Amino acid sequence: MIITRLTIIGVGLIGGSFALALRKAGVVGHIVGFDTNPDNLRHARDLGIVDEISQDVLSAVSGADVVFLSVPVCAIASVVQTISPALPAGCIVTDGGSVKADVVRTCDALMPRGCRFVGGHPIAGTEHSGAAAAFPGLFAGKRCVLTPGLTADEKSLETVTRLWAAAGADVCRMESGHHDRIFAEISHLPHAIAYTLVRAVGTADVEGENVLSYTAGGFRDFTRIASSDPAMWRDISLMNRDALLASIDGFSASLAELRRRIDSSDRDGLTEFFTTAKKFRDEIV
Amino acid sequence: MIITRLTIIGVGLIGGSFALALRKAGVVGHIVGFDTNPDNLRHARDLGIVDEISQDVLSAVSGADVVFLSVPVCAIASVVQTISPALPAGCIVTDGGSVKADVVRTCDALMPRGCRFVGGHPIAGTEHSGAAAAFPGLFAGKRCVLTPGLTADEKSLETVTRLWAAAGADVCRMESGHHDRIFAEISHLPHAIAYTLVRAVGTADVEGENVLSYTAGGFRDFTRIASSDPAMWRDISLMNRDALLASIDGFSASLAELRRRIDSSDRDGLTEFFTTAKKFRDEIV
Repeated sequence: MIITRLTIIGVGLIGGSFALALRKAGVVGHIVGFDTNPDNLRHARDLGIVDEISQDVLSAVSGADVVFLSVPVCAIASVVQTISPALPAGCIVTDGGSVKADVVRTCDALMPRGCRFVGGHPIAGTEHSGAAAAFPGLFAGKRCVLTPGLTADEKSLETVTRLWAAAGADVCRMESGHHDRIFAEISHLPHAIAYTLVRAVGTADVEGENVLSYTAGGFRDFTRIASSDPAMWRDISLMNRDALLASIDGFSASLAELRRRIDSSDRDGLTEFFTTAKKFRDEIV
Repeated sequence: MIITRLTIIGVGLIGGSFALALRKAGVVGHIVGFDTNPDNLRHARDLGIVDEISQDVLSAVSGADVVFLSVPVCAIASVVQTISPALPAGCIVTDGGSVKADVVRTCDALMPRGCRFVGGHPIAGTEHSGAAAAFPGLFAGKRCVLTPGLTADEKSLETVTRLWAAAGADVCRMESGHHDRIFAEISHLPHAIAYTLVRAVGTADVEGENVLSYTAGGFRDFTRIASSDPAMWRDISLMNRDALLASIDGFSASLAELRRRIDSSDRDGLTEFFTTAKKFRDEIV
């Protein structure tokens, strides 16, 4: 047993899977769930994901050792502001948002004395959502990045680390700004590029033809991530604005370089460009 | 029977599958194969893909009703220049290259009097190559675009159309420049973008960390096409230079627009941008 009482705010794919994994590992005594969607919340209870549900977020956090926030990243700060007066002394608040610097800074400022905020980002997910999609193995072998800020101390960090490790994750620690710059490159930029590509091709005017009707499997696979939730990516883009703008600028400079080499029919330059890229790609597989 | 004698130059995945499909449909009398790789060529004969092989490209085309060129797109013109003096009167030459205007223009100019060039582009493929990868169903239900130029007449076009239809393809006709502008958008641009993304992320400096080590399945799927053959994409980029540059410029304008909306925290503008893109993406699936 690592903690006695855990509260999950947002019992969807991530929150629900975290609860199931910890229960399976036998490291949590009692799990309380809260969700803004009452159907999803009842479903979470009926599926045995949580022991108890609450329609009131303030009572939900009462007596909690740890509160896990699994809500849209732009809603984290306002949820913390709401629950802050009800947090018991010594409570650890942690989250699963994919942007960290802004969240950690705001939540640290909202922590009552003696409470600790530990930023977290489990790198896991599926294309499904809701409590019904949750399963205990979601985090097995996946990375979870913790980004401690001002209020996190070694003890709270250790507790959150042990919980994620019990859920099967490979836990690492990182400064929140560093996290955001890395994920701007490997996640936020690719999404921005995929959306931009589909939009550019979809609006391209080739003698009035619907160009997209000629696309085959390759294009569909390449642009799959442009089917993600637009509201979520709007929020991520805004919350990680500076890092994402820097990543877009780096990409644009590379694209301008490629354009120059094509325009000047630079055979060797193009061979080098594509070969270097292929080497990077092949290394990550 | 549509034709008596077919010569396949380049008996790899595409050329070999074309031979197998036509043989299975019973529409060709005799198939001769030529390939610059003698092992691959013997393999094609041993697998029964072709009836006869030739180590000499000039004798390979002797007596052919139709010659199908399935060689790298930048090699098509030089092969046609080589075989041109040996082409029998009335012979139809066709190809499977993915760039068309340049190929059709050059090959039309190289056709001896009475011979016809019919540009072709079957939209099919797998990640494998060589005669051993060929199978008769490769083109079943796939599009094949024919791009007639100056020497193609209705009869030659009809013959090539019937052959591809017999191979199972859904044949359409298009002006070669129109073809190149469409495929610049839906195929050449996405490849250029994928290579550029991997290169930009691979060379991004985030406090000296190897950013690529944090990538997960999503990034790998998104960048799969950046593992394609660099020499092939160098050649395609150069042969379809003008259309690809225009596509890159259209993409860059879209990316600049996205950048502006992120930079100015334009929530509604970002929602519109991502929603429009997602709508295009969801429509093609």
